[in-house]
Amino acid sequence: MPKTIAAFGEVMMRLQVPGFDLLSQSNTLNYSFSGTGVNVASALSRFGHTGYLVSRLPGNPLGDAALSSLHRLGIRSDYINRGGSYLGLYFLENGFGMRPSRVTYSNRQESSFNTAPKGTYDLEQIASGIDAIHFCGITLAMNDQVREHMLALARAVKQHGGLVVFDCNYRPSLWGAEGYVKAKPLYEQMLELSDIVFMNEKDVMLTLGRKTAAEERIDQLYELLPQVAADYRIKVIAGTHRHIHGDNRHSLQGFMLKKGAFTFSEKLTFSVHDRIGAGDAYASGILHGELSGYEPEKTVNFAAAAALLAHTVSGDTPMSSEQDVFKAMQSTAGDVER
Amino acid sequence: MPKTIAAFGEVMMRLQVPGFDLLSQSNTLNYSFSGTGVNVASALSRFGHTGYLVSRLPGNPLGDAALSSLHRLGIRSDYINRGGSYLGLYFLENGFGMRPSRVTYSNRQESSFNTAPKGTYDLEQIASGIDAIHFCGITLAMNDQVREHMLALARAVKQHGGLVVFDCNYRPSLWGAEGYVKAKPLYEQMLELSDIVFMNEKDVMLTLGRKTAAEERIDQLYELLPQVAADYRIKVIAGTHRHIHGDNRHSLQGFMLKKGAFTFSEKLTFSVHDRIGAGDAYASGILHGELSGYEPEKTVNFAAAAALLAHTVSGDTPMSSEQDVFKAMQSTAGDVER
Amino acid sequence: MPKTIAAFGEVMMRLQVPGFDLLSQSNTLNYSFSGTGVNVASALSRFGHTGYLVSRLPGNPLGDAALSSLHRLGIRSDYINRGGSYLGLYFLENGFGMRPSRVTYSNRQESSFNTAPKGTYDLEQIASGIDAIHFCGITLAMNDQVREHMLALARAVKQHGGLVVFDCNYRPSLWGAEGYVKAKPLYEQMLELSDIVFMNEKDVMLTLGRKTAAEERIDQLYELLPQVAADYRIKVIAGTHRHIHGDNRHSLQGFMLKKGAFTFSEKLTFSVHDRIGAGDAYASGILHGELSGYEPEKTVNFAAAAALLAHTVSGDTPMSSEQDVFKAMQSTAGDVER
Amino acid sequence: MPKTIAAFGEVMMRLQVPGFDLLSQSNTLNYSFSGTGVNVASALSRFGHTGYLVSRLPGNPLGDAALSSLHRLGIRSDYINRGGSYLGLYFLENGFGMRPSRVTYSNRQESSFNTAPKGTYDLEQIASGIDAIHFCGITLAMNDQVREHMLALARAVKQHGGLVVFDCNYRPSLWGAEGYVKAKPLYEQMLELSDIVFMNEKDVMLTLGRKTAAEERIDQLYELLPQVAADYRIKVIAGTHRHIHGDNRHSLQGFMLKKGAFTFSEKLTFSVHDRIGAGDAYASGILHGELSGYEPEKTVNFAAAAALLAHTVSGDTPMSSEQDVFKAMQSTAGDVER
Amino acid sequence: MPKTIAAFGEVMMRLQVPGFDLLSQSNTLNYSFSGTGVNVASALSRFGHTGYLVSRLPGNPLGDAALSSLHRLGIRSDYINRGGSYLGLYFLENGFGMRPSRVTYSNRQESSFNTAPKGTYDLEQIASGIDAIHFCGITLAMNDQVREHMLALARAVKQHGGLVVFDCNYRPSLWGAEGYVKAKPLYEQMLELSDIVFMNEKDVMLTLGRKTAAEERIDQLYELLPQVAADYRIKVIAGTHRHIHGDNRHSLQGFMLKKGAFTFSEKLTFSVHDRIGAGDAYASGILHGELSGYEPEKTVNFAAAAALLAHTVSGDTPMSSEQDVFKAMQSTAGDVER
Amino acid sequence: MPKTIAAFGEVMMRLQVPGFDLLSQSNTLNYSFSGTGVNVASALSRFGHTGYLVSRLPGNPLGDAALSSLHRLGIRSDYINRGGSYLGLYFLENGFGMRPSRVTYSNRQESSFNTAPKGTYDLEQIASGIDAIHFCGITLAMNDQVREHMLALARAVKQHGGLVVFDCNYRPSLWGAEGYVKAKPLYEQMLELSDIVFMNEKDVMLTLGRKTAAEERIDQLYELLPQVAADYRIKVIAGTHRHIHGDNRHSLQGFMLKKGAFTFSEKLTFSVHDRIGAGDAYASGILHGELSGYEPEKTVNFAAAAALLAHTVSGDTPMSSEQDVFKAMQSTAGDVER
Repeated sequence: MPKTIAAFGEVMMRLQVPGFDLLSQSNTLNYSFSGTGVNVASALSRFGHTGYLVSRLPGNPLGDAALSSLHRLGIRSDYINRGGSYLGLYFLENGFGMRPSRVTYSNRQESSFNTAPKGTYDLEQIASGIDAIHFCGITLAMNDQVREHMLALARAVKQHGGLVVFDCNYRPSLWGAEGYVKAKPLYEQMLELSDIVFMNEKDVMLTLGRKTAAEERIDQLYELLPQVAADYRIKVIAGTHRHIHGDNRHSLQGFMLKKGAFTFSEKLTFSVHDRIGAGDAYASGILHGELSGYEPEKTVNFAAAAALLAHTVSGDTPMSSEQDVFKAMQSTAGDVER
Repeated sequence: MPKTIAAFGEVMMRLQVPGFDLLSQSNTLNYSFSGTGVNVASALSRFGHTGYLVSRLPGNPLGDAALSSLHRLGIRSDYINRGGSYLGLYFLENGFGMRPSRVTYSNRQESSFNTAPKGTYDLEQIASGIDAIHFCGITLAMNDQVREHMLALARAVKQHGGLVVFDCNYRPSLWGAEGYVKAKPLYEQMLELSDIVFMNEKDVMLTLGRKTAAEERIDQLYELLPQVAADYRIKVIAGTHRHIHGDNRHSLQGFMLKKGAFTFSEKLTFSVHDRIGAGDAYASGILHGELSGYEPEKTVNFAAAAALLAHTVSGDTPMSSEQDVFKAMQSTAGDVER
Repeated sequence: MPKTIAAFGEVMMRLQVPGFDLLSQSNTLNYSFSGTGVNVASALSRFGHTGYLVSRLPGNPLGDAALSSLHRLGIRSDYINRGGSYLGLYFLENGFGMRPSRVTYSNRQESSFNTAPKGTYDLEQIASGIDAIHFCGITLAMNDQVREHMLALARAVKQHGGLVVFDCNYRPSLWGAEGYVKAKPLYEQMLELSDIVFMNEKDVMLTLGRKTAAEERIDQLYELLPQVAADYRIKVIAGTHRHIHGDNRHSLQGFMLKKGAFTFSEKLTFSVHDRIGAGDAYASGILHGELSGYEPEKTVNFAAAAALLAHTVSGDTPMSSEQDVFKAMQSTAGDVER
Repeated sequence: MPKTIAAFGEVMMRLQVPGFDLLSQSNTLNYSFSGTGVNVASALSRFGHTGYLVSRLPGNPLGDAALSSLHRLGIRSDYINRGGSYLGLYFLENGFGMRPSRVTYSNRQESSFNTAPKGTYDLEQIASGIDAIHFCGITLAMNDQVREHMLALARAVKQHGGLVVFDCNYRPSLWGAEGYVKAKPLYEQMLELSDIVFMNEKDVMLTLGRKTAAEERIDQLYELLPQVAADYRIKVIAGTHRHIHGDNRHSLQGFMLKKGAFTFSEKLTFSVHDRIGAGDAYASGILHGELSGYEPEKTVNFAAAAALLAHTVSGDTPMSSEQDVFKAMQSTAGDVER
Repeated sequence: MPKTIAAFGEVMMRLQVPGFDLLSQSNTLNYSFSGTGVNVASALSRFGHTGYLVSRLPGNPLGDAALSSLHRLGIRSDYINRGGSYLGLYFLENGFGMRPSRVTYSNRQESSFNTAPKGTYDLEQIASGIDAIHFCGITLAMNDQVREHMLALARAVKQHGGLVVFDCNYRPSLWGAEGYVKAKPLYEQMLELSDIVFMNEKDVMLTLGRKTAAEERIDQLYELLPQVAADYRIKVIAGTHRHIHGDNRHSLQGFMLKKGAFTFSEKLTFSVHDRIGAGDAYASGILHGELSGYEPEKTVNFAAAAALLAHTVSGDTPMSSEQDVFKAMQSTAGDVER
Repeated sequence: MPKTIAAFGEVMMRLQVPGFDLLSQSNTLNYSFSGTGVNVASALSRFGHTGYLVSRLPGNPLGDAALSSLHRLGIRSDYINRGGSYLGLYFLENGFGMRPSRVTYSNRQESSFNTAPKGTYDLEQIASGIDAIHFCGITLAMNDQVREHMLALARAVKQHGGLVVFDCNYRPSLWGAEGYVKAKPLYEQMLELSDIVFMNEKDVMLTLGRKTAAEERIDQLYELLPQVAADYRIKVIAGTHRHIHGDNRHSLQGFMLKKGAFTFSEKLTFSVHDRIGAGDAYASGILHGELSGYEPEKTVNFAAAAALLAHTVSGDTPMSSEQDVFKAMQSTAGDVER
């Protein structure tokens, strides 16, 4: 049975140089609107659920364009507030082979979302209408005002019996110097409120500052994640291990810790067209599995296949239906479908 | 000495989303005009022959555009009838890596070609002016009216001593449920009339319903194809075995059965840019070899190299000259030609 | 107070050659999705109402793209049925100056909308949830099956006390030979059910076959429209008179007949960027005025300004907000807004 | 009854900056292939005749692209020689309003056409297969070698009873200093051989160096053209008077002198999209009228309407059918054709 | 003799929706880099002078692209400081006919230029190497820090005997409520330092708060400007009167007050392609005339023609050479230059 | 400490078909301006030096566009002469996989650079203002006039104590039949004057005609290069060995001979986006290392990494900063930088 899920997060305008040109070579940009919340709400809509975004957009042509774009992605906009003056945006120059992609941000602190005043969102109305809500560590990095909205919304959903989902998503550039120290208490607050959490062993070591003598990734994972799940009473912790090859291919393996047991997806290796947003596709796959009552093995393989497909699609936002993901779970590389 | 060859078949408009976007992400399409007959007539023109298309186009701007495009491809349009109302068209969304390409068709049954009334084509005039004619199993799938044109034309060419060529090209989606049962008698009619046929062991088992105890592809091929050649008095049967790798590369090996003997091309492995139409390039290569009196080994390697090149070119229609193919037969991957 | 309005109609894919090239010169098309119903539902959404489309789309990538596009335009898709195989489409070659634009249609009769079987739409559910419904003479031209849906829906809305709106929109090419004779009884059926009708004196003479001795357009209008309003108990009849100048400018004057009195808008003269869909913008303006309880003079000038703006915007679908239209009603040509 | 006409002339590659950017602002060019001969042969093909081009193209990818493009335009390429190394090309920056368009040429003297050695063209074969041949003053400006081909071809056609057509088309930049002095004897040679000539009073005064006391254009025309017609035994002299308005509109009036009588077309005023090649459309219209046995009045109005349409179409080459021109002769600016 | 001129001002990234689409319709943007200082420095470079920009750009890919673009425009970058984090940017949606263009700004206050700390610019080095410096009222609207740089630089140039130029350029949206009150003392400070000033009678009334009983523009001009020139010891005051027609044409007349005498340019009427930056072209024309010792009549007509040409070119930045402007001063609308 | 370097060479316009289309399939070209000298001067500018180009451009819009482009690349244009009529240009069709890229040249002999008369360049001024000058074997292939400029400039720089750099760059198509025989004495003249030379064992064998009994590349290198270094008193000889794989990847190893000792870079294997200009990036890297006093090992690895990055960037001209190259020297394939 389809569920109703909201995601709380900023809408960003992505301005991408076409092909493999640099900003100083081209004179054209392709634009779209995305963000972790956008990606998750849209992906869950495509999986058959009702996806809302809780956010704030300026009352100008940029805000109008962003709103149209959310609609196009199948997202419900009832909880979008219009106000403030600016939209966060980033420029993307595609890398090629050994040359990495580059992202250049505008000033997000001035965005409508990051300057939303107290009372912007009707917490009661939102919390009473949804089954689950998704938050992200990127939002946590913004400022006190946004963090207050975040925590208040998490508490309200918790009170109404909804599921609270948190993706750690630590971005060093947003936290600046001494970032882990600043972040730790804030992450702990969110973990206290969360039912489903996305993190891996690195997040535990760096963001939560926990230590381990284990040296292999997998051993660190087995040691640290159950501690975190226990300490914060988290029902599900999930994440991925990614390996980047030199020839434009990535390998990815998903994992999931539930009721003390780890489940791993098959290790997938694939060519990458657009890497951004693939983590959100994975998270959406895990959520879909959990909301649909899948067995962990099905859930984690569904999520990994959803992430694989997100790497093959243009833009940040996953575009695959549940059926597309099932097909990808079974298939090998195929001929034209005609 | 160059020959005169006609191909009978529908002209389709191909509407392709640029890059790797989906139809629901983009707002632009690239278009071109193709079809098995178009591809074969054009490829043979580039190999130095005179290529005619026998077809029907609407008397509207779409038909004008299709006609201009045939001319651009070097095809003679003297046997193109103008009439009817519609042009068949299909939308192509490029796949990437593990995500397959998708083709969405419009209603071809209403096209000018598929509604051509009796007497549309001047069979005598066409049959008396050509050395060979090419037909395709896609056309055979359309409807009785088209099949009547097809058979009448084959018979007329036969009567004038021309060569009849038939590419089995069975497309399950066109034949629907119980397709093989419907197709079998129609395929048999065409095989009775044909001198050169494109098929492989699968076609024999599925379309003609023949059985074999052999389990390996190659054993099935060795057992079944000579039976078919004998039963229908076919001079040459040719085809390919294709293997699709996960990293955007395909492997392809051509074969040819003539006077009871099989000849195989080298097995080629290569990166794929545009897979559609490569089978027509192979068929054109075999025809060129046969019409030019090549030895089977030269013919089958020429055809395989022509197919390889067709995978590296945009659009359905092969663009290589005879010289291009000879160069590809000898070469390894090369540096810029400057 | 915002209202809830549905529009019943086909979604068409518009495939437009960029710039002023012909189909036989270009290799690129821009596409969008529109239709009278789409345009009206979208325009009313931008004026602050809730706009639904009642229609049917194929369950394939084209249908998905059309649905995304409706969402992007702010249209609610709850009453969109997915089924059938094809989407109607048309090609548009832009004219320039004395060279008129050309439209080439695909076969609409095979579209999902035009082959929707009995029971496709839940009449009760739709009729009970809306304040008004919009129909169009283009739909009336299609086939019996569609006309049945149309009439059944009109009756259901009428029964639930909703407003029935009908835009005559007679397209000669769709009705064929003896079109007016075929159309008359069908138009009469719709007029019997309608509260608001879009027509002018030509529709009355040609479609309804009424005669007048008057020779001037304006005299014909004054004589014929009140007859029709009286005979069919129509509350509001509205329409426009358009004059096309040689230099890419049009003049347009709106009129409205209500309670026996005619009201005319100012005569607007303006440069034209995209003429298609401007009539739907006018109709939407009249509906907005009526639904909002404007005085006739405000309504008719609002509608004319909405039509003017629709001529200045790319694509069939109006993009102006209520505020944009108010600004256009007051303004003269202005400098950049910065 | 359709005729067979050849045009002798160079194929040029046109490289146009899109929109209204300068070469130093953009990074993209649109390209096409044209030339007076190309334009005339293509236009006459669209009017139902068989149009050949007599020319020479390099045996490289540029030559291949030019040849494909000629085919696309409906031109027969049997008399195209492949050889030499280069293709003439020019860059076009579109003007806007008061800022004129700019053309920058590459070195045409080195082109395959302008370096064609003696014996390149089979004069007998060409002359014996056509009803008329078209030459242009641009070709006359090139070099002795080209002029020899030109005169030999004109003489051969004359000998076979074919019609010789000559468009004066004097381009000052090609003739350089003292151009008129150099040009005069060459023009006189061509006029001696010609049956139909395109020129106006300015050509007579400047190129042929004739004098008149008349001051008004029209009086000069009436005085000078009959002299030229008589002196060189020319059957038809035709031309246009053009006036350029400041707002992107031109006015054009065609005239024609035949059997001592002048006939004038209506004076047409229209908005201009692409001015280049419109003179060739006019010439093609006159030729079509003469070859079809039209009355002078019909001929000159047909030609003027063909020229008008050529101003509304992208590219140098006219794209209108005979039917399109007839429609333009009758019409006023029209609404969308749908 | 060519001079050396610097302009002080922000570099803005302009992100323009192609054609006439809205941000909510398109997915592509064209970008360029401009600003009043950029436009003036570039225009003067094209007139043969050496143009420097004094500004600050972020040390990231956007800053790199801006710098490349300045170089491309012929601007010397020796006085460009690299630092700070952001680049100001604005989105431009082109209007059509009666629908005005729309500009949406990002937050300029956070830009590298507007956060440049004390000591960013080496005043002595700059002031000692130039003949003149240009400032703009847009910069004056920013913040105290920027205004300090501006005044310090003006004083330094004054001390070194350089010419100080100030363009009033009052933008209401930048000054906010009570803007004129805030602006007055700041404008007065700049006027005290300036030798050449761009303003008209409206600036005097609104920004300086001066009153007049005159009602006609021209009378106000004659009364108010000489007062200002006298009070602030300004050598030259220049400006334009613009009238906007409904059909995409503007009329513009330049004026100049020098040594107590007014000189007016011809009133020019022309079609507009890109209006932004035309004022800077006018200012550059006046500066060029003054720096070159032209008579006022030549200066003011040169400036008006430069402004006219800037309306016909894509982008904010004038692209005309001195020769282009001279040609435009003499010409009427012309045919292709070939 | 940054140095001042000039490069002597022709500016070519590169006209590239977008994507993988052929010239006969497309209608669009992307253009840029490059050349060995352009690439080297630009690359060294990005490494922090001052890069001049010594060349000649026509005084027309093409020349203007080329000049703007040089500025955009950070090149100083003080030694660019304007004159002559034409710009050399070449067309590039991208290969894919086994299909090689194709380059088609226009006639370079007529270009402004290749027709520069005696006295075009102020040798004294140039030679006295630079630390080093770069020449290329492509220029050497042109004609006597260009070679005279080249030798005169080399001698002048030598006299002023500057470093003379020569890249052998033998292009068979430019030298024609018996090319090596013609080239040998000219190459010897340049080697006599050179301090740093780019060549490998093949150049020694083919261009200088030296023989060796060694069969392996590496043995030939070890035997032949020290001979050449000794005979011509060359301080540094550097070059690369390239291996082309079938799957769009190349392997490259740089080497350098200095003071009798060979140093080799790591062998790099990488995917290729744009191969043209990568050799110039390597040469620029070696020059940067030598001019900066790097140890040979650092120099040769820097140069190889610069070449690798040049393969990943669009266009002929390297775009990497010194920091970019250092990063590439340390890194493995990385994730998005955000």
